[in-house]
Amino acid sequence: MSLIYVLDLCAVSVCAITATLEARRSELDLFGVTVIAVIAGIGGGTVRDLLLGRLPVYWVYDASYVVVGLVAGTLTFFLARRLVLPKNFFLIPDAVGMALFTVIGTSIALGLGTPSLVAALMGVITAVFGGVIRDILCNEVPLIFRTDIYATASLAGAGVLIALDALGIGHNAAVLIAMVGTVAIRLAAMRWHIQLPRLRDEGAA
Amino acid sequence: MSLIYVLDLCAVSVCAITATLEARRSELDLFGVTVIAVIAGIGGGTVRDLLLGRLPVYWVYDASYVVVGLVAGTLTFFLARRLVLPKNFFLIPDAVGMALFTVIGTSIALGLGTPSLVAALMGVITAVFGGVIRDILCNEVPLIFRTDIYATASLAGAGVLIALDALGIGHNAAVLIAMVGTVAIRLAAMRWHIQLPRLRDEGAA
Amino acid sequence: MSLIYVLDLCAVSVCAITATLEARRSELDLFGVTVIAVIAGIGGGTVRDLLLGRLPVYWVYDASYVVVGLVAGTLTFFLARRLVLPKNFFLIPDAVGMALFTVIGTSIALGLGTPSLVAALMGVITAVFGGVIRDILCNEVPLIFRTDIYATASLAGAGVLIALDALGIGHNAAVLIAMVGTVAIRLAAMRWHIQLPRLRDEGAA
Repeated sequence: MSLIYVLDLCAVSVCAITATLEARRSELDLFGVTVIAVIAGIGGGTVRDLLLGRLPVYWVYDASYVVVGLVAGTLTFFLARRLVLPKNFFLIPDAVGMALFTVIGTSIALGLGTPSLVAALMGVITAVFGGVIRDILCNEVPLIFRTDIYATASLAGAGVLIALDALGIGHNAAVLIAMVGTVAIRLAAMRWHIQLPRLRDEGAA
Repeated sequence: MSLIYVLDLCAVSVCAITATLEARRSELDLFGVTVIAVIAGIGGGTVRDLLLGRLPVYWVYDASYVVVGLVAGTLTFFLARRLVLPKNFFLIPDAVGMALFTVIGTSIALGLGTPSLVAALMGVITAVFGGVIRDILCNEVPLIFRTDIYATASLAGAGVLIALDALGIGHNAAVLIAMVGTVAIRLAAMRWHIQLPRLRDEGAA
Repeated sequence: MSLIYVLDLCAVSVCAITATLEARRSELDLFGVTVIAVIAGIGGGTVRDLLLGRLPVYWVYDASYVVVGLVAGTLTFFLARRLVLPKNFFLIPDAVGMALFTVIGTSIALGLGTPSLVAALMGVITAVFGGVIRDILCNEVPLIFRTDIYATASLAGAGVLIALDALGIGHNAAVLIAMVGTVAIRLAAMRWHIQLPRLRDEGAA
């Protein structure tokens, strides 16, 4: 549990960092960027807790999540003016964080006895809704609805976790396999530009 | 109750179908379209449940709503590439679904003993917030704030239901009359282009 | 308590009025403007109640908040077509309302025993999220993320309240000092155009 907690905080900080870097395009001030960084980090779990009725939401009585998001966002804000990072620097940490959020969200819902489909949804919501809210606040169509198979990787990971759990292998092993699978799908999709079909094909129009 | 349940699922699927058709304009992939379809179908009731504290929200322990939304959205996604439907094909199902969501939301709030105004609001929220969230995710000003009297028809239906309930006629009769009234107002508004006043008139500017 | 209640309703109406005036730019109809006015007035406290699990949210069993928002929004809608107010007419009422929302939100969270940082956040959320949701619905990047130190003034006020409370001076005195401080920072920031740093400086680019 302690390892999960530390990894969870790491995932929050990765979300906050990437959100700050993306917010560079818009004309936000320090406050705006920091708020969006924190929301990107904790938004997914917050929506999950609201829908499941786990209230108050998880960061109300443990301020570490907010602190980590604030610090990561603020540091990135000031460093981003100096430092230019290679574009893909955070792709792997981001994929790992997404996988972690997926298994945490799915495990929580399974623990509450929800149907499998809903448990998988809760995993995906935990993984992607921080980014969805970030994009809405930045007035953009959420990235995950437009590009490659980010959310689909999360959904696949949640499915693997639920299937392995149902097969009765230990929860820790199931979590590990699901996470590795999620990261692998995500990275493979980026490497080979695998995409889901779109409504309006380039050929058709 | 069983009839209401079936009609409710039908209304969810109509919302999912129309959301998928509207999402055609944007450059969403299959995942994005399906998520928006499901959210359009269950978003209104979800917001209502959150505000009223009916948690977990209604679809957490009954996955049928999500399944219906997913199936309707996915089928429409693939059919929409082939099939061109007349523009007004879903106007009547949509009006009926909206009326049904209105009476369900209002009835739930009345059952919890909220003030009449709040009960009417909950009816409107159930009927229109799925569409509001859909439009926000598609980065558009929500349609219901801009055009004709969609939401006003819902508000009128909620008012009729509350008034008839207060008069002591049976709840089922009240529900039926309110639904017919809502659909009638909605269709009349479309037929004769009845609109609410706007802040900036075309004449004035 | 009664004074706070009256002031709270006044703050809701100020939010509703300013939201209606701002909505003039978009092409909303009467329904859309009124809904956005009400949401601007009660949205912040609603998000706070959801996150803290104080459900149903505060306006469900006391319709006065919704009534005040509706009346203020509707009156402004019709008056705004006739009357042109000086641009700064609502700056001071708005600053006072923001300060009041801040101390109410912070006090509620402190009363629930949340960590200080979270209590301060709840004050800021109560003060600014009505405007955030208003801007999202109008399809704009929320104003508070872009301009001057509106939210920062709220955060400072929450910090003052928490510090004074911790020092053990009476809660009423702490509330009063925090509110005066918040209003002073807000008005000073507007008078002397104090701004937070931005990611993309005009000089750099």
